[in-house]
Amino acid sequence: MGMSPKRLVVVGGVAGGASAAARARRLCENCQIIIFERGPHVSFANCGLPYFVGGEIAEQDELLVQTPGSLKTRFNLDVRVNTEVLSIDRQARRVKVRESSGREYEEHYDALVLSTGASPLKPPIPGIDRQNHFTVRNIPDVEKIMNWSRGCERCRAVVVGGGYIGLEMAEQLRHRNFRVTVVEALPQVMAPLDPEMAAWLHAELRANNVDLHLNDPVAAFEAPTAAEPARASIVVLKSGRRLPADSVILGLGVKPEVGLAKNAGLEIGQRGGIRVNEHLQTNDPRIWAVGDAIEVRDVVTGQWSLIPLAGPANRQGRIVADNIFGRPRRYDGTLGTAILRLFKLSAGCTGANEKCLQKAGRAYHALHLHPNSHAGYYPGAEPIALKILFAPDTGRLLGAQAVGRDGVDKRIDVLATALKAGMTMNDLAELELAYAPPYGSAKDPVNLAGMAAQNVLAGDVRLAHWHELPVGDAVLLDVRRADERAQSFIPGSVHIPLDQLRFRLNELPRDKEIIVHCLSGQRSYYACRVLSQYGFRCRNLTGSYRTWQAVKS
Amino acid sequence: MGMSPKRLVVVGGVAGGASAAARARRLCENCQIIIFERGPHVSFANCGLPYFVGGEIAEQDELLVQTPGSLKTRFNLDVRVNTEVLSIDRQARRVKVRESSGREYEEHYDALVLSTGASPLKPPIPGIDRQNHFTVRNIPDVEKIMNWSRGCERCRAVVVGGGYIGLEMAEQLRHRNFRVTVVEALPQVMAPLDPEMAAWLHAELRANNVDLHLNDPVAAFEAPTAAEPARASIVVLKSGRRLPADSVILGLGVKPEVGLAKNAGLEIGQRGGIRVNEHLQTNDPRIWAVGDAIEVRDVVTGQWSLIPLAGPANRQGRIVADNIFGRPRRYDGTLGTAILRLFKLSAGCTGANEKCLQKAGRAYHALHLHPNSHAGYYPGAEPIALKILFAPDTGRLLGAQAVGRDGVDKRIDVLATALKAGMTMNDLAELELAYAPPYGSAKDPVNLAGMAAQNVLAGDVRLAHWHELPVGDAVLLDVRRADERAQSFIPGSVHIPLDQLRFRLNELPRDKEIIVHCLSGQRSYYACRVLSQYGFRCRNLTGSYRTWQAVKS
Repeated sequence: MGMSPKRLVVVGGVAGGASAAARARRLCENCQIIIFERGPHVSFANCGLPYFVGGEIAEQDELLVQTPGSLKTRFNLDVRVNTEVLSIDRQARRVKVRESSGREYEEHYDALVLSTGASPLKPPIPGIDRQNHFTVRNIPDVEKIMNWSRGCERCRAVVVGGGYIGLEMAEQLRHRNFRVTVVEALPQVMAPLDPEMAAWLHAELRANNVDLHLNDPVAAFEAPTAAEPARASIVVLKSGRRLPADSVILGLGVKPEVGLAKNAGLEIGQRGGIRVNEHLQTNDPRIWAVGDAIEVRDVVTGQWSLIPLAGPANRQGRIVADNIFGRPRRYDGTLGTAILRLFKLSAGCTGANEKCLQKAGRAYHALHLHPNSHAGYYPGAEPIALKILFAPDTGRLLGAQAVGRDGVDKRIDVLATALKAGMTMNDLAELELAYAPPYGSAKDPVNLAGMAAQNVLAGDVRLAHWHELPVGDAVLLDVRRADERAQSFIPGSVHIPLDQLRFRLNELPRDKEIIVHCLSGQRSYYACRVLSQYGFRCRNLTGSYRTWQAVKS
Repeated sequence: MGMSPKRLVVVGGVAGGASAAARARRLCENCQIIIFERGPHVSFANCGLPYFVGGEIAEQDELLVQTPGSLKTRFNLDVRVNTEVLSIDRQARRVKVRESSGREYEEHYDALVLSTGASPLKPPIPGIDRQNHFTVRNIPDVEKIMNWSRGCERCRAVVVGGGYIGLEMAEQLRHRNFRVTVVEALPQVMAPLDPEMAAWLHAELRANNVDLHLNDPVAAFEAPTAAEPARASIVVLKSGRRLPADSVILGLGVKPEVGLAKNAGLEIGQRGGIRVNEHLQTNDPRIWAVGDAIEVRDVVTGQWSLIPLAGPANRQGRIVADNIFGRPRRYDGTLGTAILRLFKLSAGCTGANEKCLQKAGRAYHALHLHPNSHAGYYPGAEPIALKILFAPDTGRLLGAQAVGRDGVDKRIDVLATALKAGMTMNDLAELELAYAPPYGSAKDPVNLAGMAAQNVLAGDVRLAHWHELPVGDAVLLDVRRADERAQSFIPGSVHIPLDQLRFRLNELPRDKEIIVHCLSGQRSYYACRVLSQYGFRCRNLTGSYRTWQAVKS
C-alpha cells in the first residue's frame, strides 16, 4: 500500500495475528491496533498443550506467552478477547463484532489481518460428540482434559488419529500411566513421513505399551453397555474391534477457518484455505491473511497446500506487518519442516516425501542411510534413520526425513536450510559442519547423504529399495559379518562377508542381477563397487537390513 | 589427469590420506594403492585422544577406526606403517622410503597424495622438552600421558595453550580429578571466538576449578627445587608467577609438515602450508595434497589460511581421489566451522570472527542475542549466547559464534550451511526450522538473528556494543523490570522499565544519545523503536546486560 494506515484490525490473537500486531507497533507507534480474539486467551503456546496435559509443563500460566494486559503495556495493543468478528463490510472497511455479553458493534479499519486459524476436524462419525471426547486446540480444551483426568487412575484413553497431536497426546497420557490406544485409519501414523520411516514410530509406540491399530478407521462411537467397562464410549472400528474408552482424544487434523473470509467474498483456494498472493494479501488489497487459515505454496512441488505450522504463521505475521507499512516483503512458500518427539525417538521431516513426489509426478531418487548421531568411537552414538529425496537431473535436494534417538533435529534443520537454499547433493557432500566427538563425525550424516547421492548421480551404483523385496529372480547377497548374520537375516539371501568378496566372486552368477545388502548400506555399496568393476550386474539395497527390519517388524 | 593411474602412492595414513586411498579403491579396483605411514597407526581418531585420556573412551582400540589389516581386507590397500617417506624424485616419479628397521627402498607412483599432516608447535622456550611434558597428537602421545597419569593421585597438570586441545585436555584431566591450570599467552582462550564470547569459557573453566592464567605467556620451564612440590617442572610465567607441575600438556597449536614437499621443490605458501590449486593439486600435476599440511582459501575473506580440521581433511581426501581418477571436483575453501565441549558448555563458530574481519578490512555489523535453546515454556530451555556478523551492504552472513549449554551445535550447523549457501540475513529470518517445544521455538534463534539483523539493515535500530561501555556523555538506559534491576545493574545506568516507558518519556533528554539495554537486547530493541518514533536519538546495546556481564566477570 505504501501508506501508513491509521487503524489496523487483526482478527485472531494467536501466533500470526499476535506477531503481526506486535511488529506493526514497532513500525508505527501512533497507529491504533486492535486485536479481536474469539477465545479467552491470546498468544498462547498451542504446541505446548499436550505437555501441559502430561505434566511436563507444570503451570497453565506457562502456556500464556502473552496476555491482553501484557500486550497492552508492552506494545500498546488494544486486545479484545471473547469477542468474535461476525462479518466484514469491505466496502465500508468495517468489521462487525460480538462480545460474549451479546453486545454487537462495528469497528473501522484501514488494514485488516485475518489470522482466524483452523479448527479440529470432526467427521460425521456417529457418536463423535459424546461426553469425554476431547479435541486439543486451545487452553479450554486442555482444561477439560485435565478435569477429566484428575479423577482417573489407569484410565483408558483412545486417541483417534496418529498425527502430531494424537501421538504427542499418546506419549503424554502414557507418562501419566494411563492406558492408551491409538487408532489410525491409514496403514501408518504421521502422514508427513513415508511408510518405512513411520515404521520406527510404530515400534516405539508398541515398546511403550501403546496399543496401536492401523488401517482401521473408526466406524462409530457407541454408548458403553453395562458389561463394557468404559465411562465415555466404545470406539467401534471398521474391522469390528470394540475399544472401551474412558475418554477419546480426537486428533484428526484441522481445517482452515474461512467462514468470515468466504462470507466477505474473499477468494478461497481449492484446498479450502484463504488464497493470498506472495505478499500474503487477499484479493482485497486492504485485507491480508496469515497462518493456518491460508493456503501456501509448497516450495518443492509448487502446489497450493494447507500446512498448519506455528513457525510459518509467526513469520507470516511479521511479513504482513511489513507489507502493510510499506515495506514490501514476500513469503516464499512453506517447506513443511516439522518434528515430533515420541518417547525416546525424534522424527522430523522437511520438504517433499516420496508419496508427494509420486502424486506430483516428479522424478526422484530415494536414499536411505543409518549413520551415527556422532563419532562411533565416542560413547552414546545412536543410529539415525535418514531418508533423502533428490532430483535425478539436477541433483537438487527435494526432501528429507529422519528418525532416531539423538541428533535428528540438527540434521533436519541443516537439511531444511539446504533445501531453502536450493542446494544440490554435491553441496551437501561439501557442507562444513561442526565436528567434535560428542557432536558429530568428520563426515557428518548430511555429508554422507550427499556423498552417497553423488555415487548414484555419477552412475557408480544403482539402488534397490525395501519395497522391491523379495527380489524375485535376482540374487540377494548379504555382505555382513558372520556374527551379524547369525543373529538374523533376510529370508532367501546368500551370504559372503564383504572382506571375503574378492576371493569368492566365482560363487556369484554373472547372468542374474545381484541385490547387495549389509546392515545400513555402506558396506554393500563397497561390495557393489567391487562387483561392478568385475563385470557383475548389481544394485545396493539402500538402507539395507535396518530399513527392511523396520518395515517388517 | 583424465587417465587412470596404475599406481597411487599416499603419504600419511590418517584422515585425508586414508580417505583418498579408500575412495580411490572404489574408483579403481585394479590399481595398486600404497599408503606409507611414518607412525604405527593409520586412520585413528585424532579428535578422540583427549577423551581417551579422560576415560570417556575406555579402550585404546576404539580410537583405531581402521587398521592396516582392515584396510587390506576391506579395500585391498597396501598399508606400510612405521615407514617414512624420505624424498620424492618428481622426475622419475619415485619416492624413497625408510622402514623402522632402517631398510630403505624406492617405489614408483603415477599419482602421489601428500597427507603429511601437522606437528605440534614447540616454541624455543627454555626447558620445553623436559620430562613429563606431553603433546597430544597421536596414540603414542596419549599412551605416554596415560602411563604418567596412572601413578598419580590429584596430580597437578599445567596446560599451556587455551585452544581446542588444551581446553579438552583441561576438561578431561579435571574429570579424572587432577588439579589443572591453564596458561594462555593471549588475553582470551579459543582464538576462533571473539573475546566477549570466549569470556563464557573463562567463567566455565573457573566454575570447574581450573586455575586460569590469561595474558601471561610461559617464560621458562624450570627444574623444581627441593622446596617446590612438582615432579616435572616449574612453569614460570612472564608475570613471574611460578606454577609447580607434575606434568605439562603442550597445546600451542600445530604447524604443517611440509619438509617432504619443500625438499621436492613443491610450492609452499606464505602461511607455511603446501600450496594447492582448486583441485587440490600442487604445482606438480602428478602430486596432490590434503589436510593439515595444506593452505586453504578462507571462504569469507578469500585469504590463504591454515585451518587444520578433520572434516575438511576427510572431504579433501575424497575430492583428490575423484580428481586423480578423472572426475574433476573442486574444493571450495574452508569456513573453519568448529566446536568445543567444555564441561557443560558448548562453544562453536563458523566463518569469520570480528578480529578477522577487522584485520581483513571488511565492513560488518556485529549482533549479539541470547535466545533460548527451545521454547521458554517447556522445561530445560537454556540461553544461547549467539554472535552474528554480517555485511552492511548485501546483508550476507559473514560468521557466527555460539556458546551455551544446549542447542549450540545445531545452530552453528544451520549457520554453517547458510554461510556455505551465501545466505543473507533476510534468508535467515525466513528459514523454516523444525519446531516442537523440546527442540526449538516458533522463531528459532537463527530466525531471531535474521530478524534482528533486518532491523539493523532497514535502519530501524542502531546498535551499541559492549566495548563502548562506559558510554561517556550518552545516557545508559536500563529497561528491565524492577526485580531484575534489584539484583544487579550496569554502573551509571538509569532505570525505566519498558512497560512504563511510554509514560515516562519526559524523564529522558532529547539532546543526548540514549543507549538502551535490557537483559538480552530484545526489550531494549522495543524501547528503541518507541524512543526513535518519539524523536529520541538512541542505540540498542546488542547482547545487553548478559554480554556485558560475561565480559566483566
